[in-house]
Amino acid sequence: MPTIAFQGEPGAYSEQAAFDFLGAQAQPVPRPTFDAVFDDTTAGKVDFGIVPVENSLAGSVHRNYDLLMRHTLHIIGEAIVRVRHNLIALPGVELPDIRRVYSHWQALDQCEHTLGRLLPGVERVQVYDTAGAVKMVLEEQRRDTAAIASKRAAELYGLPVLRDGIEDDPTNFTRFVVLSRQPASPPAATPCKTSLVFATRNTPGALYKALAAFALRDIDLSKIESRPLQGSPWEYLFYLDFIGNQSDEVCAHALAQLREFSTFVRVLGSYPRANMPA
Amino acid sequence: MPTIAFQGEPGAYSEQAAFDFLGAQAQPVPRPTFDAVFDDTTAGKVDFGIVPVENSLAGSVHRNYDLLMRHTLHIIGEAIVRVRHNLIALPGVELPDIRRVYSHWQALDQCEHTLGRLLPGVERVQVYDTAGAVKMVLEEQRRDTAAIASKRAAELYGLPVLRDGIEDDPTNFTRFVVLSRQPASPPAATPCKTSLVFATRNTPGALYKALAAFALRDIDLSKIESRPLQGSPWEYLFYLDFIGNQSDEVCAHALAQLREFSTFVRVLGSYPRANMPA
Repeated sequence: MPTIAFQGEPGAYSEQAAFDFLGAQAQPVPRPTFDAVFDDTTAGKVDFGIVPVENSLAGSVHRNYDLLMRHTLHIIGEAIVRVRHNLIALPGVELPDIRRVYSHWQALDQCEHTLGRLLPGVERVQVYDTAGAVKMVLEEQRRDTAAIASKRAAELYGLPVLRDGIEDDPTNFTRFVVLSRQPASPPAATPCKTSLVFATRNTPGALYKALAAFALRDIDLSKIESRPLQGSPWEYLFYLDFIGNQSDEVCAHALAQLREFSTFVRVLGSYPRANMPA
Repeated sequence: MPTIAFQGEPGAYSEQAAFDFLGAQAQPVPRPTFDAVFDDTTAGKVDFGIVPVENSLAGSVHRNYDLLMRHTLHIIGEAIVRVRHNLIALPGVELPDIRRVYSHWQALDQCEHTLGRLLPGVERVQVYDTAGAVKMVLEEQRRDTAAIASKRAAELYGLPVLRDGIEDDPTNFTRFVVLSRQPASPPAATPCKTSLVFATRNTPGALYKALAAFALRDIDLSKIESRPLQGSPWEYLFYLDFIGNQSDEVCAHALAQLREFSTFVRVLGSYPRANMPA
């Protein structure tokens, strides 16, 4: 049964992504930080790691792209989770009892308007994880405090959901990638995606020339994002995902051409594409 | 003396950006939300608005791009602020007294490691604004609580800085844009930047063809980012900044060509380029 490290406590959205990817056989291993997920996967303490790389509302998680660059792990898969936040409290607690809310900053931010409407003036306390927020409410036996987390977190800690679907925007998806010491080798017919990071010289047309590698071969891009290169304020890194497998001949030619027109290319992995959840 | 709306309390980084842009004559007007900044600027209650659009660590502020799309305001300038966070507390308070820290979620996140080292196990409380956090510590006279905010916020509220430069990563810059009901008309020789949003059909090579508009004319891009179009999960919007003024003949040709190869183009404004702070 494969072990897979994730950031947070049992019931975190990352844990749900691990089950989505590996099925019920998965053995998720909670870790306190993203760094620990990368370190333990690299050191072989777990079989895999799983981390979020982008949210449909908040954008890319740059910290995890930085960690991908600092480590030599491969992306071997992706999982897309529909983020549905719930207000969770001790049994018998009602809305008027609640003076403070615990959650991860991103969950607090994503429920900002709904919280303002349901609980005007409530204190928002930022903790390291959504499921950890539920655990804290339970352990501290706080009747004046609610947590924002997944339904699964409520079930795991045996607490009732006071309000479900409290996120401001229902089109809230997070995309996770699965990390391994060995690259994936998906069968030839599997629809795949490839993730990479590249840099170009800061000259007009440099990005256009780099993208010709894909456009000339009708390779579809599913993501591109420029990011200032740290320490070099006017140079840019690009995160890019394309549809295809680096071992396909056409994609291999595209990558060879991209290398010719870039100052740096690192392929993070080719892996089977995930479907959007319902 | 021009009035300029910003999100937060006096001493917020957005207020500093307003002074950087308009000089000491600026009359910054604090507003509780980004929505209020856009609404008051649109309604003519203030001359200008100023909002953050990207941070070098956290990435783009998608909410403000969404607001730019929903309003008809023009970007007439930019300001780049070096974000330097400080730990601020009541006079006489020392590190061992501190049990909780108030700040905006982004500031708490950007000081995560340093806080863990200086104040292990400290409670992180998320409030709506960094300078507002200082105001709360002062008003509540809390001797067990510190705020994370700018040096100017400490000075405004007359509180001492316990530790300065507590951000985990010193390459921490935020880029703000200035909003107006009227477009800017910079003199012809001014080095300018133009910001726009566009969408393409989701077909291979669509982005490449769109970017030809700039590459064929040696127009330099300073930012590009794809973002899933809300409600259309597999379609993408792009945020793009290029170096040049839309009223220059070459840039006008580029924009005409971009429109031909896009399903949607909205130019947010052409404005003088800001320098990176020291």
